[in-house]
Amino acid sequence: MNLEATIMEFKAHLEKMKMYQSAMSVMSFDDATIAPKGATADRAKRNGFFAAELFALSTGEKMKSLLEALEPHKEELDVNTAAMYRLVKKNYDKSVKIPIDKIRAFRELTSKANDVWEKARKDNDFAAFAPYLRDIVAARKEMVEFVRTDDAPTYDYLLDDYEEGATMAMYDEYFAKVRAAIVPLLKGVMESKKKINYELVKMSVDIETQRKISEYAAKMVGYDLNRGYIGETAHPFCSTFSRNDVRITTRYDENDFLSSFYSILHECGHALYEQNTGEDIAGTVLARGVSMGIHESQSRFYENVIGRSKGFWEYATNGLKEILPQSYKDVTATEFYEAANLAGPSLIRVEADELTYSLHIMVRYEIERMLFTEDIDIMELPAIWNKKFEEYLGITPPNDAMGVLQDIHWSFGGMGYFPTYSIGSAYSAQFLSYMKREMDFDALVKKGDFATITAWLVDKIHRHGSIHTPKDLVHKIAGEQLNADYYVDYLNEKFKSLYEIQ
Amino acid sequence: MNLEATIMEFKAHLEKMKMYQSAMSVMSFDDATIAPKGATADRAKRNGFFAAELFALSTGEKMKSLLEALEPHKEELDVNTAAMYRLVKKNYDKSVKIPIDKIRAFRELTSKANDVWEKARKDNDFAAFAPYLRDIVAARKEMVEFVRTDDAPTYDYLLDDYEEGATMAMYDEYFAKVRAAIVPLLKGVMESKKKINYELVKMSVDIETQRKISEYAAKMVGYDLNRGYIGETAHPFCSTFSRNDVRITTRYDENDFLSSFYSILHECGHALYEQNTGEDIAGTVLARGVSMGIHESQSRFYENVIGRSKGFWEYATNGLKEILPQSYKDVTATEFYEAANLAGPSLIRVEADELTYSLHIMVRYEIERMLFTEDIDIMELPAIWNKKFEEYLGITPPNDAMGVLQDIHWSFGGMGYFPTYSIGSAYSAQFLSYMKREMDFDALVKKGDFATITAWLVDKIHRHGSIHTPKDLVHKIAGEQLNADYYVDYLNEKFKSLYEIQ
Repeated sequence: MNLEATIMEFKAHLEKMKMYQSAMSVMSFDDATIAPKGATADRAKRNGFFAAELFALSTGEKMKSLLEALEPHKEELDVNTAAMYRLVKKNYDKSVKIPIDKIRAFRELTSKANDVWEKARKDNDFAAFAPYLRDIVAARKEMVEFVRTDDAPTYDYLLDDYEEGATMAMYDEYFAKVRAAIVPLLKGVMESKKKINYELVKMSVDIETQRKISEYAAKMVGYDLNRGYIGETAHPFCSTFSRNDVRITTRYDENDFLSSFYSILHECGHALYEQNTGEDIAGTVLARGVSMGIHESQSRFYENVIGRSKGFWEYATNGLKEILPQSYKDVTATEFYEAANLAGPSLIRVEADELTYSLHIMVRYEIERMLFTEDIDIMELPAIWNKKFEEYLGITPPNDAMGVLQDIHWSFGGMGYFPTYSIGSAYSAQFLSYMKREMDFDALVKKGDFATITAWLVDKIHRHGSIHTPKDLVHKIAGEQLNADYYVDYLNEKFKSLYEIQ
Repeated sequence: MNLEATIMEFKAHLEKMKMYQSAMSVMSFDDATIAPKGATADRAKRNGFFAAELFALSTGEKMKSLLEALEPHKEELDVNTAAMYRLVKKNYDKSVKIPIDKIRAFRELTSKANDVWEKARKDNDFAAFAPYLRDIVAARKEMVEFVRTDDAPTYDYLLDDYEEGATMAMYDEYFAKVRAAIVPLLKGVMESKKKINYELVKMSVDIETQRKISEYAAKMVGYDLNRGYIGETAHPFCSTFSRNDVRITTRYDENDFLSSFYSILHECGHALYEQNTGEDIAGTVLARGVSMGIHESQSRFYENVIGRSKGFWEYATNGLKEILPQSYKDVTATEFYEAANLAGPSLIRVEADELTYSLHIMVRYEIERMLFTEDIDIMELPAIWNKKFEEYLGITPPNDAMGVLQDIHWSFGGMGYFPTYSIGSAYSAQFLSYMKREMDFDALVKKGDFATITAWLVDKIHRHGSIHTPKDLVHKIAGEQLNADYYVDYLNEKFKSLYEIQ
């Protein structure tokens, strides 16, 4: 077969896989939103079936022969095809190198561990979860040995799973800057005399009104509802079936409309990225955000950089007050802005504010790092966790349920995942700085011209989907890599001003 | 391979097909309820892909060899396996005997015809649709020749497509009885002095309240919401993903809550059938209602036989009034009962009442019969339609949009489909009569003991799924076949009493 025919067959095979992925997204969205509890077992079976079908397509003889046929020509491929080859080959290698019985055993382990973790968190019983966590760490270490191609640290392989090209060296440098800047900044906030009144924005807003607010917020930032849908789930998320069907979800709390308001802006950031991947790569494996970190940079950009800015509230307050109950009529733009930026130490990551969020992540990163580079006793984790919390956030969790046991991630083996949440915020500040070289960002936000801002992000980031690696993508924008300085400057500037810190 | 191994492989292959069908049901439910318009083309592509995958599984080499291996042993199979073999073989033969290019051409023809029909109905322009209808009739005739196994009339093959074993002879006899009884009964209703006040139940009921009514009605008749879900669509339907996930939809009209109330009872009838197929056949090709006619008998049973009975309103009125707005507080059970049974000639099938519904179907059946047995000019159809309407219902459609062009069915080639709607009602009356031999039906309804009634239907019908042919199933219950006498007696008794006809 000649190269052209091989490429066509390769692309057709990927398109077939994409059909399965899209179908699985529909089913999983349905699961998360409206599927009845009584069919949980049936759905698990169906999901398992389709996961296996997709795995067979990704790793079977057909894929193997296509990759082998392309390998000698990989330098001759056009940019998009080369990117597809790279992504698929990487996934193929990871999938086929680990023996199937190891994968199965790991799946069983994490499935059991997840149940145990849920119970352990409820019972505040870390000891119950500890042996599973120990086994998961051992299993992940063992699996790295199957895929290892160099003598990089084991943890690097895990980090790369969630953010291509990320390394411990990169994160060490990153978190060093974060630690050096945010810990003292938080101290300054805590010592500040400035008082912010969050109660002002916590007046009751009925759910039907909040649904209208969601639609208002989504439309405001340019989320295309003709190619989207806003659903409701306990944990908000964004799911892509194709660039023309990118859905988000939120949850409503009658006494805290800002919570769902910001979750909508956050998910809209993810959704805008997915809706704006290029038409030229639609339906291909490239038609999705390039990495978790870059994806998170987009959600944080709309949620925080835009949505928690002063200019945003100067623009949005009047429109919002047309929907909000009468009780809100006296709340000013400044009051909304300040309430939206109330900062301080807290115990739970998912409730953390913009300022302290990365400290929560840093604790987790440092512990994961220890798990993969040091010989520590798992039973020491609660003490280590609490000590770090004391050191960085100035508070100590009253129990493990609100401390080391709070997140689901380790129970499914997701070590390496957490840091992407933090660099998302850092990238968003970095992109803001680049953007400001080309446009008057504050003025655009103040007049609600989010389209111009989005156009910049589309041009630099969204439309490229996964054509480039995340590192290459960032480098193409301004000739540098992840740089925490922008993030640190951004936080210093914002919170020093807000909290009147010298 | 020995027989046992072949059977296991056969069942595994069918289970695989069932996974695809279930996934396609999820996607199509999503399409019908919340999927965004902007992704219509993407979804069409995805649906086409999975339809092709499923077609390949149903007709490919694997299926062929399994059926060939089983064929010599078909008399040795246990009841369930024999039923699976029969159903699958029948579908296989129909699918493989018609050349694929004929199937493709037919699909293109009906796709185009559907667009043309939609426009023709809007423009009241039968002449625009006529050539397509002519081609569709010709194509269906041609396709029957590929699958023909005997010298039965062509139309019999079409009727069998929608109701296994149904024939023109059977329907001729059936409709003769219907015509002889209902046409004079309707005349009696029209001449009756009895006045029913529908306006009484047409007071405004907001949608949120109607949603509560839907849930109340669904729970009342035993629809298991833990294994179900009530969605909203312009055209109500019931969709089965597995016996543990059977969903229904409805639509709400603020000024006619009874419309959605009865659509819920109707869809619950379908859903109860699907939720109660036997656990022993769960996940197999047998786990679904046996035919359209029997399925419709269940929906009509809950909608009409139960839901439009006097006893039902004696039971349900108080509960319903607890949810209904204050304005309903003086409406009596008798007034609800009478409003729910307002009867009279109407033009549109989907709005027809219980009494006249089968007359609407009869017009369509007689015309389809002509199309396949006589050499009639398609352009005469509007005149034929109108003449029959005049004869049976005493009214003449003012235009073709409200006459011969009103239904979508012919545009997709669905000739043979309509009569199943009518025999559904007839079967429901037949089952009622059998049931009354064993229990005091009226007393059970009056005290809201629907569980006992459903238990009878589960035992005689639901749990068997598609194990037996529809004819065998009915025969097993009381030793006879479809018999319009029960239906005719039921309607006579009910409407003569209600309209005070001697």
